[in-house]
Amino acid sequence: MARIAVVAGDGIGPEVVAQARKVLDAVLPNVQATEYDLGAARWHRTGEVLPDSVLAELAGHDAILLGAVGDPTVPPGVLERGLLLKLRFAFDQYVNLRPSRLWPGVAGPLGNVKPGEVDLVVVREGTEGLYAGAGGSLHRDTPAEVATEESLNTRHGVERVIRDAFARADRRERRKVTLVHKTNVLTHAGSLWARTFDAVAAEHPDIATEYQHVDAAAMFLVTQPQRYDVVVTDNLFGDILTDIAAAVTGGIGLAASGCINPEGAYPSMFEPVHGSAPDIAGQGIADPVAAVLSAALLLEQLGHPESAARVNAAVAAELASRVPGVTLRTEEVGDRLAAHAVA
Amino acid sequence: MARIAVVAGDGIGPEVVAQARKVLDAVLPNVQATEYDLGAARWHRTGEVLPDSVLAELAGHDAILLGAVGDPTVPPGVLERGLLLKLRFAFDQYVNLRPSRLWPGVAGPLGNVKPGEVDLVVVREGTEGLYAGAGGSLHRDTPAEVATEESLNTRHGVERVIRDAFARADRRERRKVTLVHKTNVLTHAGSLWARTFDAVAAEHPDIATEYQHVDAAAMFLVTQPQRYDVVVTDNLFGDILTDIAAAVTGGIGLAASGCINPEGAYPSMFEPVHGSAPDIAGQGIADPVAAVLSAALLLEQLGHPESAARVNAAVAAELASRVPGVTLRTEEVGDRLAAHAVA
Ligand SMILES: CC(C)[C@H](C(=O)O)[C@@H](O)C(=O)O
Ligand SMILES: CC(C)[C@H](C(=O)O)[C@@H](O)C(=O)O
Repeated sequence: MARIAVVAGDGIGPEVVAQARKVLDAVLPNVQATEYDLGAARWHRTGEVLPDSVLAELAGHDAILLGAVGDPTVPPGVLERGLLLKLRFAFDQYVNLRPSRLWPGVAGPLGNVKPGEVDLVVVREGTEGLYAGAGGSLHRDTPAEVATEESLNTRHGVERVIRDAFARADRRERRKVTLVHKTNVLTHAGSLWARTFDAVAAEHPDIATEYQHVDAAAMFLVTQPQRYDVVVTDNLFGDILTDIAAAVTGGIGLAASGCINPEGAYPSMFEPVHGSAPDIAGQGIADPVAAVLSAALLLEQLGHPESAARVNAAVAAELASRVPGVTLRTEEVGDRLAAHAVA
Repeated sequence: MARIAVVAGDGIGPEVVAQARKVLDAVLPNVQATEYDLGAARWHRTGEVLPDSVLAELAGHDAILLGAVGDPTVPPGVLERGLLLKLRFAFDQYVNLRPSRLWPGVAGPLGNVKPGEVDLVVVREGTEGLYAGAGGSLHRDTPAEVATEESLNTRHGVERVIRDAFARADRRERRKVTLVHKTNVLTHAGSLWARTFDAVAAEHPDIATEYQHVDAAAMFLVTQPQRYDVVVTDNLFGDILTDIAAAVTGGIGLAASGCINPEGAYPSMFEPVHGSAPDIAGQGIADPVAAVLSAALLLEQLGHPESAARVNAAVAAELASRVPGVTLRTEEVGDRLAAHAVA
């Protein structure tokens, strides 16, 4: 039995999560799902973001399925730091996994890239770097104000995520890992990343490696996304690069992600990359594919690769059959995906 | 008389700079150019990167024209920190100006963006942030290693570059400024940027403003680059975003930049965004357009907007006349541009 905590969240979150659950229920017997009311709505109602008691309850689950949290009425940082990042850090989800594929049937924005040609996965570090929350300000609101943000990087944290990237490349066809950083400017952190990468690479002589500065990688993701297989990078660079990768493969409407604690000491969390999209919430027109693909990552993580493959195949069929210009209905897409995944 | 220090540099640097000088000489009487031998070659020969005496001499010029420095044989950071960043910081070049246009005749990678539709300029902060060089490491080369990088941001530094961005928007047609940061995670620096932006915006009620997180901006630069007019952002975000902007407008082969000290207390520096491209150096096939467009920015900064406009018009004609697949000759392009600029 899989115990799944469901955080539907705000905006289109509940709509897309409902479809992901439909698909999960279809392929996996005995899902025991528990709903948790977290996000902008709860914050407005109670002032609470993530009470310790809820955090403790979440810890007792096998995985968390999250829709989207956030709303323009909540000050920036409150839900991001208090909920999303809190969970990533508290549950030591150091592998932030973000695959990008240009699915057949999807018209990406790049004229010279054909469907099927892009199939990459970014392994983004999830618990360190500029996300550590180390920083402050002095003389606030005066002309003398200084504000700092500190990127914290440990050998421990860098090595484990690089090892994960190599392990994933080992299971893929092209077997290539690209390290992205900015070693020519961020010389201390960059050196730690580069030396650790080289050390782990030496244990995998059969895996091809390359290094790129983050600015060059941002450019090549636009001009030659086909060149990437596994990309490993730090928390902030990963945030930016995965949005570019999503953009060139049809948008964040299709982008899935997993915040993974590979050892399973804590639950991993799976969420679409898109936000709560308050502008289209409640209309039943949000695309649930990103949420469903996130559920496929969840299945993979919980040891059900065949079910995951069935969900991915259902998504492939769905996307290949889409007619441009026809507005989709969230529910109907969910129904089709669930039906296809068990067929 | 304009006293220009020329740092041709490495790889294709000398080839493209020669064309930029040709064009400068054509449109501006009395250019007094002095060559400075800096870059990988000098470092290999003498171990020197930028001697204080040379820095002092450079300070006596009206502007610096730089080709490209760097070579794979030089360890990462040596020339970047010791030369490029040293100059930006020593000469307080706090406005790193990077325009991007999709020129008619240039086939960009985006299927749904037509030439002429993209015309944006990124005003990248040039003297602060993660480029300040604040960071270090502890327990290096042990499992306990920690490496830090600190982003330093001052009200002084943030306000002056935001003011510059608004002043530029004021002179443009669309009159819009987009602030890009990551206020939901980098809460201290993000708050300083956002508060300062709002304060300056309040003085310009006639200029439209918007805010975007850096990940969203990276995505929209791919999906809707047309939406941007002036973008103001910090040093590292600007580094990444300008490479995306270059990619969607035909590549860094066309991307110009100026590192500007607007007050003229120190010389400003103008350089193509591309690197030294050792793989094609010496073959006479490098595209000099980015270097020539950088010279146009130089002309603008030195108070010759009409000459700058003539150079831009020459570039427009050159690009519109290019036949795909025909290899260009660096010299010939320079000759054509110089001839056109005075015609
Ligand atoms: C909402 C924000 C904190 C988050 C991040 O920066 O990691 C988001 O952009 C993401 O990529 O999951
Ligand atoms: C070479 C490097 C230090 C530099 C930077 O990061 O600023 C370059 O990428 C640029 O954009 O001019």
